[in-house]
Amino acid sequence: MAQKPSIPKGTRDFTPTEVAKRNYIFSTIKQVFETYGFQPIETPSFENSLTLMGKYGEEGDRLIFKILNSGDYLSKVDESLLIEKNSLQTTSKISEKALRYDLTVPFARYVVQHQNDIVFPFKRYQMQPVWRADRPQKGRFREFYQCDADVVGSKSLWQEVEFVQLYDAVFSKLKLTETTIKLNNRKILAGIAEIIGEKDKLIDFTVALDKLDKIGAEGVTKEMLTKGISEEAIKKVQPLFNFKGTNNEKLNQLEELLKNSEEGIQGVNDLRFVVNNVEILGLQSANLELDVTLARGLNYYTGAIFEVSAPKNVKMGSIGGGGRYDDLTGIFGLKDMSGVGISFGLDRIYLVLEELNLFNQVELPTPKVLFLNLGEKEAGYCMKALIKLREHKIKSELYPDEAKMKKQLNYANRREIEFVVIVGTNEIETNKFTLKNMQTGQQQQCNLEELVNITTSH
Amino acid sequence: MAQKPSIPKGTRDFTPTEVAKRNYIFSTIKQVFETYGFQPIETPSFENSLTLMGKYGEEGDRLIFKILNSGDYLSKVDESLLIEKNSLQTTSKISEKALRYDLTVPFARYVVQHQNDIVFPFKRYQMQPVWRADRPQKGRFREFYQCDADVVGSKSLWQEVEFVQLYDAVFSKLKLTETTIKLNNRKILAGIAEIIGEKDKLIDFTVALDKLDKIGAEGVTKEMLTKGISEEAIKKVQPLFNFKGTNNEKLNQLEELLKNSEEGIQGVNDLRFVVNNVEILGLQSANLELDVTLARGLNYYTGAIFEVSAPKNVKMGSIGGGGRYDDLTGIFGLKDMSGVGISFGLDRIYLVLEELNLFNQVELPTPKVLFLNLGEKEAGYCMKALIKLREHKIKSELYPDEAKMKKQLNYANRREIEFVVIVGTNEIETNKFTLKNMQTGQQQQCNLEELVNITTSH
Repeated sequence: MAQKPSIPKGTRDFTPTEVAKRNYIFSTIKQVFETYGFQPIETPSFENSLTLMGKYGEEGDRLIFKILNSGDYLSKVDESLLIEKNSLQTTSKISEKALRYDLTVPFARYVVQHQNDIVFPFKRYQMQPVWRADRPQKGRFREFYQCDADVVGSKSLWQEVEFVQLYDAVFSKLKLTETTIKLNNRKILAGIAEIIGEKDKLIDFTVALDKLDKIGAEGVTKEMLTKGISEEAIKKVQPLFNFKGTNNEKLNQLEELLKNSEEGIQGVNDLRFVVNNVEILGLQSANLELDVTLARGLNYYTGAIFEVSAPKNVKMGSIGGGGRYDDLTGIFGLKDMSGVGISFGLDRIYLVLEELNLFNQVELPTPKVLFLNLGEKEAGYCMKALIKLREHKIKSELYPDEAKMKKQLNYANRREIEFVVIVGTNEIETNKFTLKNMQTGQQQQCNLEELVNITTSH
Repeated sequence: MAQKPSIPKGTRDFTPTEVAKRNYIFSTIKQVFETYGFQPIETPSFENSLTLMGKYGEEGDRLIFKILNSGDYLSKVDESLLIEKNSLQTTSKISEKALRYDLTVPFARYVVQHQNDIVFPFKRYQMQPVWRADRPQKGRFREFYQCDADVVGSKSLWQEVEFVQLYDAVFSKLKLTETTIKLNNRKILAGIAEIIGEKDKLIDFTVALDKLDKIGAEGVTKEMLTKGISEEAIKKVQPLFNFKGTNNEKLNQLEELLKNSEEGIQGVNDLRFVVNNVEILGLQSANLELDVTLARGLNYYTGAIFEVSAPKNVKMGSIGGGGRYDDLTGIFGLKDMSGVGISFGLDRIYLVLEELNLFNQVELPTPKVLFLNLGEKEAGYCMKALIKLREHKIKSELYPDEAKMKKQLNYANRREIEFVVIVGTNEIETNKFTLKNMQTGQQQQCNLEELVNITTSH
């Protein structure tokens, strides 16, 4: 019996149009990455489990897709594990490989493994799918692409400046204007933690502060108190409740607030370097905004933290993010390699461009010209012309079967093919072609050279 | 303790240079596919196991990579299976998904699943990785790309003509001349089977006949006799032992030999159509060669069979292959969909191009211009120029750290960067740049416009 075909939940088929639109985003990002001096690498889809496990926390370990060993994989498993059906402990016995969960850990592994061949600072980009056994929901998939660029081997803050420019360049090229590049620094957060006195309250603090627009100063204070942050501490960071103005004004306020925290002041100086230089150099269409509540991947980043928001008229989470981490490769034995990187959220960018109708310039992979097939002799005549058109990179094809003209025209219409070429005995005798513009309905006779010219220029 | 990083056997990391060379092949194939009217689709990396299992024979089933179910996957398994450590039967209980083994079955699944949205004949191409738990060896990997183009929904032999042209177009573009496109037809093989009397001897017969060049007619006859093919049968197909001449001469011989086999004569007619039309239309650099020993995927193809060999001076197996199959989608419940398709063997093409030094035109993703970093003020001046260069899509970067000039020049050399820009106080004061050509060692002063012009045109 035939199976009713389907695909696993959280995965997707991509139609030709979707592939074309996705490739448009990919190639835009890729082109900007390369003009900024980043080079592509690719790593295997699956890694040794040891490489991945333990790198993303307990939840991460759970969400990693494991690959079953080949052959008689149960033979070496301790019987007692099987009898008690201990899935957790059995896994490492029957699975030695796992699908990539992100691009960062494989990149760290790559750098360490190839360290003798790499010229540092190493600027790499990578655009490959990753897999997570997450519960699928709108905009969250079990297979999705990440697009990452990272530099390892330099602590220069010019990198941070360049990443802000790079985000701006990509989104401007995509005509996605008015994005907001949010910037923070882990050292600022460390400084605030010092001020409020308790490091472990930092996340509660930033989460509460982030709600200022929605619930007001009173609401935020209430939430902070509930979370166990003392009134005294809240008083100390009162200026953050009225944190407004230009980026420079904000930096001045922070400098005052954090004047007793060495690390905090270091954070202010770092941010000032980035903000000043971005300002001097200018951005095309994005806004750079200091945001002290930005704390993504808190345990991971050690310096700059980035996040990009879609234009305000689109409801969408962040469409990019990144930051600096001082010890990327330490887990694999290569110490003191500072790294800084950013990532683009392809699926969300896709949804935003779709919503704002910004795909209208994408060239779809539909053929531009269809030659109708009105008989073997006629088809042979068309095939000769096709060679010429294809030499000129005009996407074109012959309707393969000698079907009714109506059927063939219907095919052209449904595939949104722009031009149809009709060749009968008449055309062959006069060495001409009848060219029909399917949008206007207009028909004209032309020779091969004219056919190439008209369909190229259109 | 730090883990010593490695990757699973049969998988590969790709360096920037390797990625660039591979992308050169991909984009060449892609561009030709699109000018021939093919449209890209993409399918998920893993499919439901039911979709894949049983489609590639027992051996294939064994080589499919299975993904372990998430969570407490052992809880639902029958205890007796676990106690007897029955790996084979346990698999389907603890694994519901599997990695794609080829692109053809997922394509068939796609066509059936989306049949209401597809305009037939449907011409699709697909370039994605596949995974096989094969024993790795030279040129055989556990993760590798397939590049397929197929048409479903038409039996027209013009498709076969076009696929020969398409192979020729791709390899000519890659400057890989003198490839041989071998052509056969399953119906010819069926005709031969009829003549030799025993269908089950057909593979033995073609395998033996294929050795004609190496072991001579006598050796071939001997092998056939060993395999149980009767002397009488061998006599009947004697003309195949001296099967020479042009494709048309071969076709005439076949026509005579197979005159009593209806299917065989149909095969001759099919081949004649393809051969004649390819001849009339001409090929750029490939040779089309009838080869009655070509029998790849015998149980799969029902009409044309293709295989491409690298130029004779390169020792390499086939670099492409394909054929027609009359019931691609039947396994998923959509009957009578004839398909014909071809595939490119990326890894082998890569090795051939490498051996023949045909990658010399590939633009490597190395930056073209490096701005030295001689201080914060100088770097800021350079950053302004970088914006301009990048607007002109010139791959360029600033050395991130204020390091010794020797170190920075060494970095440029090791990365094979063509131009270095040196900016000190002098350059800033005169609004100039010192441009150094790293190959010739030549240095010159120029303004920003000249800098753009020189580095663009070079």
